[in-house]
Amino acid sequence: MNKFKDRMSKAQDKMQENDVDYVFLTPDSNMYYVSGYEGEIHERHFFLVISQSQSFFFVPDLYEEQVRDDTWIKDVRTWSDSENPRKELGEILNGSNSGKVLVSEQMQARFLLDLKKIFSEADFELAGEVFEQLRLRKSSEEVERIKESSKIADEVIKDLREMNEEIVGKTEEELADLIKEKMSEKGGEEPSFTPTASSGPNGAKPHYSYGEEIIEKGEQVVLDFGCYKDHYPSDQTRTLVFGGEPSEKFKEVHETVRKAQQKAVEKVKPGVKAKEVDRAARKVIEDAGYGDKFIHRTGHGVGLELHEPPFINQENNRELEEDMVFSVEPGIYIEGEFGVRIEDLVVVTEDGCDRLNKTDRSWKC
Amino acid sequence: MNKFKDRMSKAQDKMQENDVDYVFLTPDSNMYYVSGYEGEIHERHFFLVISQSQSFFFVPDLYEEQVRDDTWIKDVRTWSDSENPRKELGEILNGSNSGKVLVSEQMQARFLLDLKKIFSEADFELAGEVFEQLRLRKSSEEVERIKESSKIADEVIKDLREMNEEIVGKTEEELADLIKEKMSEKGGEEPSFTPTASSGPNGAKPHYSYGEEIIEKGEQVVLDFGCYKDHYPSDQTRTLVFGGEPSEKFKEVHETVRKAQQKAVEKVKPGVKAKEVDRAARKVIEDAGYGDKFIHRTGHGVGLELHEPPFINQENNRELEEDMVFSVEPGIYIEGEFGVRIEDLVVVTEDGCDRLNKTDRSWKC
Repeated sequence: MNKFKDRMSKAQDKMQENDVDYVFLTPDSNMYYVSGYEGEIHERHFFLVISQSQSFFFVPDLYEEQVRDDTWIKDVRTWSDSENPRKELGEILNGSNSGKVLVSEQMQARFLLDLKKIFSEADFELAGEVFEQLRLRKSSEEVERIKESSKIADEVIKDLREMNEEIVGKTEEELADLIKEKMSEKGGEEPSFTPTASSGPNGAKPHYSYGEEIIEKGEQVVLDFGCYKDHYPSDQTRTLVFGGEPSEKFKEVHETVRKAQQKAVEKVKPGVKAKEVDRAARKVIEDAGYGDKFIHRTGHGVGLELHEPPFINQENNRELEEDMVFSVEPGIYIEGEFGVRIEDLVVVTEDGCDRLNKTDRSWKC
Repeated sequence: MNKFKDRMSKAQDKMQENDVDYVFLTPDSNMYYVSGYEGEIHERHFFLVISQSQSFFFVPDLYEEQVRDDTWIKDVRTWSDSENPRKELGEILNGSNSGKVLVSEQMQARFLLDLKKIFSEADFELAGEVFEQLRLRKSSEEVERIKESSKIADEVIKDLREMNEEIVGKTEEELADLIKEKMSEKGGEEPSFTPTASSGPNGAKPHYSYGEEIIEKGEQVVLDFGCYKDHYPSDQTRTLVFGGEPSEKFKEVHETVRKAQQKAVEKVKPGVKAKEVDRAARKVIEDAGYGDKFIHRTGHGVGLELHEPPFINQENNRELEEDMVFSVEPGIYIEGEFGVRIEDLVVVTEDGCDRLNKTDRSWKC
């Protein structure tokens, strides 16, 4: 049985368990997970419809051939640009208007409001109710792919360290372009997100990507990037200093973040709660007096989505299980001065975890 | 008054006119249109909240600085990873739970279902009700930007024609990469969609992009691509034959599509209905006996979104107005053999239209 079909059948078992009548997926990672369809969301109604006993695609006729080529699901219903998709779908569903209906987390309002008109009496919830549990623990094939993409990111960090002084004088944007180029050369498919190469005070904005700033000797650069490989992304961060010595304050902060990351990684094993991993990192940073400068969660799961459960934050009581994959990425952000973040992906093992990123965590090149 | 602020005030006038109580925008082109904020949708609650008399951002605290830097809106409410965003937003909204609420067309279900829980008694509709009319007619600055990005696409087509025989033997993917590279060299910011370079039978799938197929001498290649420039995309298609002569059947079909596209463009002027433009193209193709092979609409509006109103299809009774910009792109798709599509963007003028794509429409290099 092909792996997609097998996952569909597990999803339908879960629907039965949770009394779910229908799941409507738009093109997203859940759709790929159970069908193998790789296309993207666009402006036309494009659903994979799943009931406890059957599944079919409802797609614009333009896509019929592609869907048939890509997936094992041979029941493909189509609508054309001259038809009203809500009406067509309503007819297929033959009067169903109540029950429990799950939809893609990323389903767009323009489609969801239409489904709400068809299922006027139904309770709507998110598809994660069925898929989250199935996807939390990665198969060995999935872990292998994340390892592959992580290796590419690691190799890029090694190259940048070797370039060292050559990086000084480049703009952040040039450095980001170099990172993208190198990931691609090493077999990465596309960046898993816009690379961050934030130098100096820009490093204090955790979600700044890059700009025209020139990278100075001895100034930190937060390097957060990754790429896809066979549908699975990497995501790592190193904070490096090129061609010189940083300030004492930076060194102290960097060492604090390094220790926090180390303590959090050491905490990871099956049965530990996600929030305890967050706590382990946060405690080191609080003890050093920077508690209010660590302004985000410690990590997020990684799989078909770059950000997916389990989320490693102060609230999450979920217990870690073997084969979960997530990031551990504490940071300290000193407004107007600099920022430091260190991030590895880890996979939970029987009695601890393995890091998927292996490069040196220091700021030194 | 800055242009974003001016647009916000027009949107609020329209809200008043349509009795809309709240608009909730996630990062999308409407949010950019009224605020200047350029970020992307991600997994945390990130809204621009608009009432008839005020507007504020509700964003993760991580983004506060970026939002303040990017936009004219200085009322920025934040929530942190240790808070429940639905609860925080509910408190800000202070008990509002009914009325008419509009949301971003692209708002994801995970946010919309939360808003539905806050506004348990409200009617939800799409933000287009307020924004569509405002954005349909482009300002001269907007048209100028679409012209700029269209010029880049045109220059790439010219280069490919000059390369002619050099293209033969490349894979579709190599040709697509070349197109991306050339757009970037000529100042394009990023592709406005995955370029199509579909040769031979692949050309018969209208939404196929590219693969490993080798481009043969005398075989058609459908080349549909564009790029962004200052937020505005280009989008053009030429169907070219490199290094040889195509079949007589292809020539006949190409000529039919060329005439259909010409007739449709000639039809465009203020007061004409969108569906009449579609009809003009479709009639030529039907008369030539290929009616059932033209399996999509004739065109779509282009602005901050690549696909936006007005849609040029068989149903749309909307009358064209000066300063609308849209594509005219009929096609014929012969399964298992080949496909032909020709596409220009046009801007509606006082008494007709101007094409924004100017390269020769023939298949010849």
